[in-house]
Amino acid sequence: LPANHTKLVTAAMLAIGDELLSGRTKDRNIGYLADFLTLKGVDLKEVRIVGDNEPEIVEALNALRARYVYVFTSGGIGPTHDDITADAVAKAFQVSIDHDPRAMKLLSEHYAAREIEFTEARKRMARVPHGAELIENPISAAPGFVIDNVNVLAGVPSIFQAMLDSIGPTLEGGIPVKSVAIDSPFPEGTIGTALAELQKRHPETAIGSYPRFDGERYTTQIVIRFRDEQSGNAATHDVKTMLDTLQLQEQDK
Amino acid sequence: LPANHTKLVTAAMLAIGDELLSGRTKDRNIGYLADFLTLKGVDLKEVRIVGDNEPEIVEALNALRARYVYVFTSGGIGPTHDDITADAVAKAFQVSIDHDPRAMKLLSEHYAAREIEFTEARKRMARVPHGAELIENPISAAPGFVIDNVNVLAGVPSIFQAMLDSIGPTLEGGIPVKSVAIDSPFPEGTIGTALAELQKRHPETAIGSYPRFDGERYTTQIVIRFRDEQSGNAATHDVKTMLDTLQLQEQDK
Repeated sequence: LPANHTKLVTAAMLAIGDELLSGRTKDRNIGYLADFLTLKGVDLKEVRIVGDNEPEIVEALNALRARYVYVFTSGGIGPTHDDITADAVAKAFQVSIDHDPRAMKLLSEHYAAREIEFTEARKRMARVPHGAELIENPISAAPGFVIDNVNVLAGVPSIFQAMLDSIGPTLEGGIPVKSVAIDSPFPEGTIGTALAELQKRHPETAIGSYPRFDGERYTTQIVIRFRDEQSGNAATHDVKTMLDTLQLQEQDK
Repeated sequence: LPANHTKLVTAAMLAIGDELLSGRTKDRNIGYLADFLTLKGVDLKEVRIVGDNEPEIVEALNALRARYVYVFTSGGIGPTHDDITADAVAKAFQVSIDHDPRAMKLLSEHYAAREIEFTEARKRMARVPHGAELIENPISAAPGFVIDNVNVLAGVPSIFQAMLDSIGPTLEGGIPVKSVAIDSPFPEGTIGTALAELQKRHPETAIGSYPRFDGERYTTQIVIRFRDEQSGNAATHDVKTMLDTLQLQEQDK
């Protein structure tokens, strides 16, 4: 979707965790981030999922952070040995990593208030790459962090979402994409050729089509996405005209 | 997870579709494929999601097919202009693409039996790269295809799943990974250091830990994954001993 001559704000996500690849955990953060970014006018362009494997995290992160305005990671910042995201991010940026004094203070106060021992394992959650800023975690205190254009968030969905809310105001948004959904009583196979023509005629919009089956009939939801209102209106008008024409033709039979 | 000196069968998935990145559709195929491959002993190592963009599909596909034993794609093989997966796959393999006679026969018979017009748009679904074998689609006839190590499947979950069943018997599996789940009454922060030691002592297994919160207490589910029964039993034994020891210590306080 063209950005109408304004700067396109792009993003990628890197979801980290063996449990996502084994099927043990079904990811719920990708769809949430997609919705969140769409509302902010940021174009999510690519998602990758890799396991708890340092070279693979480093390689994916370096590929994504060079290519997109923002990168968001999920997972691997807990207290156990398989939580290696912070170390992998430090390696990707070639910076040192240590227990961050700000994070140590946050966590020691959090656990002291709850009379929970601040174990070595829990101190792992204060490991933050040099030069990163912390991201607030209002749920369980252990912070995420931002380094350059990479936002490192927790994998637990409630914490992932709370951290996104924490950084939301700091993200530069683009012009939000609007969308119009039009129900077509015809299946994709009937309208496909006409729809392709309309897409060519309205390159400033993205016309998508999604098949539906109600158990009896195939129909289609047509979704027109646009940043510029006038382009969106023109495409919407033409799609509706196309559907009306087909309906009249049908009645003539 | 080491494969115990047998060939590791690896796989990657490439999910294709703007609707997955805009949040309009929440992917349900990744988790399904992960479960499916785990049962077959195939290690899903990486997942990527890209939009309906030919250069991006080609680049991701070429990266993944060079690196893993199998690649599975989902989406983009319907009848409309935004269904560009087959053309992108042909480009990635640098082979020609045309209406495949076998697919044309399948589809023309399917539509004739239902008295549905076999439109140009529907004929798009018979476009198959040169040299590919068809994958049966028992739900809506339009086939997927296999070319070299790449399996091209539909994005609609019911059809994705049916196509996986069609190719399942042709896939070479590995030694299935088994797993044992052990409930720890302690939170991750309490057992993290001990668990890291046990992971080092049992490198033939993958010990994962997953935090749980029941609204009152934090506990942990420990999951031990292994291919070799003996290694799995030894790790399970040691994890249980560790938990028993901590519980006795707790009672002593």
